[in-house]
Amino acid sequence: MPRTVEKTLRTIAPELQEVEDKLLETTQVSFQPLSQALSYLLLGGGKRLRPAIIILAAKFHRFDPRSVCCLAAAVEMLHTATLVHDDMLDNSLVRRGKPTLNQTWDESSTILVGDYLFAQAAFLAAETDNLRVMRIFSDAVMTICSGEIRQILQANGDGQGQTLDGYYQSIYAKTASLFAASAEAGAVLGQLPEEDIASLRDYGYNLGMAFQITDDVLDFTGDERRLGKPVGSDLRGGLLTLPALNFQEQNPQDQRLTRVLDQGDASEGIILDIIGAITRSGAIEASLAKAREFSLRARNNLKALPDNPYRQALIELADSTPERKK
Amino acid sequence: MPRTVEKTLRTIAPELQEVEDKLLETTQVSFQPLSQALSYLLLGGGKRLRPAIIILAAKFHRFDPRSVCCLAAAVEMLHTATLVHDDMLDNSLVRRGKPTLNQTWDESSTILVGDYLFAQAAFLAAETDNLRVMRIFSDAVMTICSGEIRQILQANGDGQGQTLDGYYQSIYAKTASLFAASAEAGAVLGQLPEEDIASLRDYGYNLGMAFQITDDVLDFTGDERRLGKPVGSDLRGGLLTLPALNFQEQNPQDQRLTRVLDQGDASEGIILDIIGAITRSGAIEASLAKAREFSLRARNNLKALPDNPYRQALIELADSTPERKK
Repeated sequence: MPRTVEKTLRTIAPELQEVEDKLLETTQVSFQPLSQALSYLLLGGGKRLRPAIIILAAKFHRFDPRSVCCLAAAVEMLHTATLVHDDMLDNSLVRRGKPTLNQTWDESSTILVGDYLFAQAAFLAAETDNLRVMRIFSDAVMTICSGEIRQILQANGDGQGQTLDGYYQSIYAKTASLFAASAEAGAVLGQLPEEDIASLRDYGYNLGMAFQITDDVLDFTGDERRLGKPVGSDLRGGLLTLPALNFQEQNPQDQRLTRVLDQGDASEGIILDIIGAITRSGAIEASLAKAREFSLRARNNLKALPDNPYRQALIELADSTPERKK
Repeated sequence: MPRTVEKTLRTIAPELQEVEDKLLETTQVSFQPLSQALSYLLLGGGKRLRPAIIILAAKFHRFDPRSVCCLAAAVEMLHTATLVHDDMLDNSLVRRGKPTLNQTWDESSTILVGDYLFAQAAFLAAETDNLRVMRIFSDAVMTICSGEIRQILQANGDGQGQTLDGYYQSIYAKTASLFAASAEAGAVLGQLPEEDIASLRDYGYNLGMAFQITDDVLDFTGDERRLGKPVGSDLRGGLLTLPALNFQEQNPQDQRLTRVLDQGDASEGIILDIIGAITRSGAIEASLAKAREFSLRARNNLKALPDNPYRQALIELADSTPERKK
């Protein structure tokens, strides 16, 4: 039984606190409504997983706390910026148990706050005085955006053409790319040898894949209150994630999934029926097995790295990812 | 009579061509729909004013063409990104005589292409290997975004609280901040002495103010075909620019403007009536006088700089700005 993530991250509690301070600082702008929106978004209790990965990767070797914490805060802002735009695009109502910004602000201001966060993230990333790190991150943002555009244009909302290959490509773009960039950039700031930078990048990739698959499983099996968002939201949005794709493969004659996707206005009854069917099927276990496979790969990526508390924390992070409940 | 901008910019034709090449290169991505959208946006014949300012400022002293052209392309992308999001927010139909991206693509993809352009701009800016330049630009983007949010939240669409002070603040954020950043960053890359960097930043600020006021005048007096967008679009969108604010001040008893702003659904007849009244009033000349005042200040900012063809081109740019017809 893995320790909880919270416990694992105690090793780097002072650095995570510095990231919180940095985030708080960036919300203190003179224009009140903007300041409130930034606080609402940035101080709303995210898991701070990406900052943790950066800090842990950097701590393997030389460690300049100031620039590492700037980068960690920058990545959390970048991540938040993508969430703000995503929630608006999906017209999501809640995130982390709170109404999304697009529910309380108008659409235009919401887009602009996202843009502001991108710019603020770039500003903070420049504070690292490391151009390689800047390139890693702008590259990751391009991957995220083009991946999402691809998903929107290809899926076209009707589930056509959503395949396993497409799914893995899309969760790489959406999640694993920023995890990989975080681990790589942390290692670059920590001035690790190139082969260790590559291993940590691979670790981030595999951890990100495991993380997103688990997220997609929890969208079916999770507790709404713990998740802070309604169950089945991907399916309602016309998106087939791994559990649904596995179910489709295991039950090729079952037409319910196609019906839900074809009828944009499918009744709540039909949607709950298919969510129930997927949840009770072997598709969930098959998806979790895949998440565990990625998590194991992440663990293996750390083999050649020196054994220290940071490596141990990264291992625990990998182990606990497919087991998390929220 | 000032020479045309096109003629002025012949001094730096090779560098501007390199910027075009760089922009073309960035549109060549493997994912076809994205590649098409990028070509549509980036190769659509913008004036390339911001790149020109960067190149001219850099040429005063030491000049590394590669990094200067990267920066110039980055700024053009950044500018394009803000236009993409703006057009979507305003639901604009045409820009530069062509349908806007939001007219041909869905809303989600449009937002994401804007985000992609931001990231690509950051990536290119990192190619300059100059962190001060990166900070100048991320700072400008934050100014642009917070300015627009302020404008949206304060104006609230009903024209209330739109004052001259607010107008100048808003055109600084919207336009002059990026002009100032361009001139400053070009000068930084050209390794000019600090006092010349400051003068060029001031030049960019004043040129940007003159440019935006002229733009706002052309929104009333311009030729739709030459402008590539419908006349009076600011007013239709509930935005009071300098000509309207001047008119309001000169005709405090005239209630037509208030009526148009109060009735979001004012008939085309009433709108054309007030546009005509403003166009025939002294408000246009008063606005142009203000644009010329800023342009003269820009000219004066160049006084202490060495006399060379680049200074001459910047002077001509300042002189021609309030006289432009599109």
